[in-house]
Amino acid sequence: MMPSGGAAARTEQLTVLKISVHEMLNDPKVGALLSEAGETLPDEPWKAANLREMRRVWIHANAVERELVGALSRACSACELQWRDARLNSDFKLVLPYLSEVLNLTRQSGVSKAEVLGCSPYEALLDEYEPGAKTELLDKYFADLSDFLPSFLQAVLEKQDKQKPGVLPAGPFPVEEQRAFGAALMQVLGFNFDHGRLDSSLHPFCGGVPDDIRITTRYTDEDFTQSLMGVLHETGHALYESGLPRDWRYQPVGAARGMALHESQSLLIEMQACRSREFLSFAAPLMREAFSGSGLEWEVENLHRLYTKVEPGFIRVDADEVTYPAHVILRYRLEQGLIKGDISLEDLPTAWNGGMTELLGICPPNDSLGCLQDIHWYDGAWGYFPTYTMGALAAAQLFASATKDLPNISEAISEGNFSPLTDWMRRNVHSYASLFETEELIEAATGRPLDTADFKEHLLVRYG
Amino acid sequence: MMPSGGAAARTEQLTVLKISVHEMLNDPKVGALLSEAGETLPDEPWKAANLREMRRVWIHANAVERELVGALSRACSACELQWRDARLNSDFKLVLPYLSEVLNLTRQSGVSKAEVLGCSPYEALLDEYEPGAKTELLDKYFADLSDFLPSFLQAVLEKQDKQKPGVLPAGPFPVEEQRAFGAALMQVLGFNFDHGRLDSSLHPFCGGVPDDIRITTRYTDEDFTQSLMGVLHETGHALYESGLPRDWRYQPVGAARGMALHESQSLLIEMQACRSREFLSFAAPLMREAFSGSGLEWEVENLHRLYTKVEPGFIRVDADEVTYPAHVILRYRLEQGLIKGDISLEDLPTAWNGGMTELLGICPPNDSLGCLQDIHWYDGAWGYFPTYTMGALAAAQLFASATKDLPNISEAISEGNFSPLTDWMRRNVHSYASLFETEELIEAATGRPLDTADFKEHLLVRYG
Repeated sequence: MMPSGGAAARTEQLTVLKISVHEMLNDPKVGALLSEAGETLPDEPWKAANLREMRRVWIHANAVERELVGALSRACSACELQWRDARLNSDFKLVLPYLSEVLNLTRQSGVSKAEVLGCSPYEALLDEYEPGAKTELLDKYFADLSDFLPSFLQAVLEKQDKQKPGVLPAGPFPVEEQRAFGAALMQVLGFNFDHGRLDSSLHPFCGGVPDDIRITTRYTDEDFTQSLMGVLHETGHALYESGLPRDWRYQPVGAARGMALHESQSLLIEMQACRSREFLSFAAPLMREAFSGSGLEWEVENLHRLYTKVEPGFIRVDADEVTYPAHVILRYRLEQGLIKGDISLEDLPTAWNGGMTELLGICPPNDSLGCLQDIHWYDGAWGYFPTYTMGALAAAQLFASATKDLPNISEAISEGNFSPLTDWMRRNVHSYASLFETEELIEAATGRPLDTADFKEHLLVRYG
Repeated sequence: MMPSGGAAARTEQLTVLKISVHEMLNDPKVGALLSEAGETLPDEPWKAANLREMRRVWIHANAVERELVGALSRACSACELQWRDARLNSDFKLVLPYLSEVLNLTRQSGVSKAEVLGCSPYEALLDEYEPGAKTELLDKYFADLSDFLPSFLQAVLEKQDKQKPGVLPAGPFPVEEQRAFGAALMQVLGFNFDHGRLDSSLHPFCGGVPDDIRITTRYTDEDFTQSLMGVLHETGHALYESGLPRDWRYQPVGAARGMALHESQSLLIEMQACRSREFLSFAAPLMREAFSGSGLEWEVENLHRLYTKVEPGFIRVDADEVTYPAHVILRYRLEQGLIKGDISLEDLPTAWNGGMTELLGICPPNDSLGCLQDIHWYDGAWGYFPTYTMGALAAAQLFASATKDLPNISEAISEGNFSPLTDWMRRNVHSYASLFETEELIEAATGRPLDTADFKEHLLVRYG
């Protein structure tokens, strides 16, 4: 929403806020209180979790100098702005010096944090988004997926080639009708409009606090299917926030648990539940009614084909479930190499295009379809990408456990009843907030640590 | 925009922010630095003004306890919410206990600040909105207006009765067309959309920072004239903000100077410039074009009659220039009485209705048209109302001085050229930001302290 001329002023405001937070956390009183508390862990688990989370935040803040916090904030804002131009012009060189500054400062931050956390600089960065995540485990997941996916993808593509392709219902679909329909489905999913809103923005997101959750989507007149899945995805994030325990509001133990689990909740709704034939058989008649549609393209079978189409493409955010992990694996490899210094930033476009060719068999014709497509690195988010795939794995594993516990979940969804699914998530995920570490929580909820089995099984059932 | 269920959480957030700001200001280091600086005033005026403004903010913060800041923040939020219900039900008693709490805490705050500032508790509250404002001067302005206005109003009403009444062009006027037309006029006035936005909200406002200014208005399908003047009014606020000197950004000396001067800039645009026959002769053809209008109701004469209609009414925000001061005088008397304890809160509805009968000859039939109409007191803004009339006086005095310096201002406006007016304001008002006290600034710009002469002259010329 920001007008372009506001960037410098808003950068200063954000920087001042970040420095203020940093100063508050680094007040010697905070360190003293934490070491005082350190000798004996509280008996009650929620108190112990509070202390653990306070320490984690404090360690991250304490590991870096105030000057670095300010410099990184300003460098990221400047680079992000320049990235918009570079992407528009598809010219990586335009942003290279800015990204180089961001990378250098990010590396400094990672190195400082790594010393305190006793891990690699990359893991220290990862820890900001997914506390406790280790590259050893990530390497295992990604190796397994790299083994499984290429031949599976090939088989899916061959199968799809033999089927009738999905046909997009013809528009135009007025934005106001799309909005109203999205809001109606949000209510079906359990979103409470007394405690939240649905608005528009350039990039869909979910923000706010558990009692006032704001989600957004973007609309195009020609196609309602994309904005709709955007709404359902963000509603998954919103349901997680709204399910956090009231008694722990405003406490570290009461916050959502890391980006992987957050993404698991949105993918659970979007991918596991809402791209299923069960959900689409419930939603298809409503879609027809909402958009006064008629004809074969409004049948469940066609909508299901549309929503489960697999196709290697250049753009991560447009990718399907089957090809998505390849996009993440590429970024995971590259960002590790760049942080370590094994890859030089000048070589990023070449390395990117080589990776895409190797992983998906397609080579981006230009940088805006390649290494300029995502905002993350340019905005300073290094170590974020792996959480998308961790989220996909967790979504599959949680959904499988839920449907094993409550076999009627899918039938209920086909009747527009999400309660069995969301109640299970409330009990087994949302209500624990940050009481457990991510791995503990997944093990408690599903009976085993996070792995790739249910994700692969899900892909086999839906696409195989 | 907030969903109703978000109030409690947002109240907590605002309270925590207010307490944090209070704690930062009350850090002993701040007091020590200020007294260290106090012995010798800086030579350069802008440094001296910075110090003066830092002291003022510090004094206000230092005079009250942290507990009072928190209690007042929570009481105001609770009362404001309850006020919405009370106004809807037109029942003052519903909000009485909440308002009583707000008044008690506000009085405590005023008393504490008064001791440090060496003034009355009411003046201490006034000082938060209009630094340095004194009741002695306000009493003089209001006594003078109370002398002049009643018989003048009578004469205007008699004159209007003999004329043809203005006719509202018939709608509907689609919101999107209204928005586009408002934005076009904003650009005529010099609003730069690279540094700001126009959006919608329940109550029009202007917010943001000089490089990113957000204004809003509200629309109804049936009438474009109100939203349009709303946009022009807020654009006046925006032009002030955007004219603040770049070199002083983020410094106390670089901030806008109090609410009276801010209101003077919005009224200068809305009342002095844009309700004039000159502006309407420029805008009328554009209005016709924007809304595909035709007929006599789109003629300049009719639009001018619409935009200069005088009529005593219950609602302040709907009041014309002639009756507006009576609304402010009523509130000024009542809030002083309530803070002093001369009026008991239980008697507010009666006192309000008596005052309206005395000042405008009409008695509100219920409390939502009476003492429940404005959010200010219920939200803790005591001592704010007088700045509206100070702003109206300052707008008239500044406009008169500008047109005396540059006699072509009105002719330029009739051609849609606002540069002579806004350039004069940039030079004589905006560029000084908070370098001078309000009174000094007005004297420097107009050659004499603020008084009622030009305002009365303006009313005589336009309505007499």
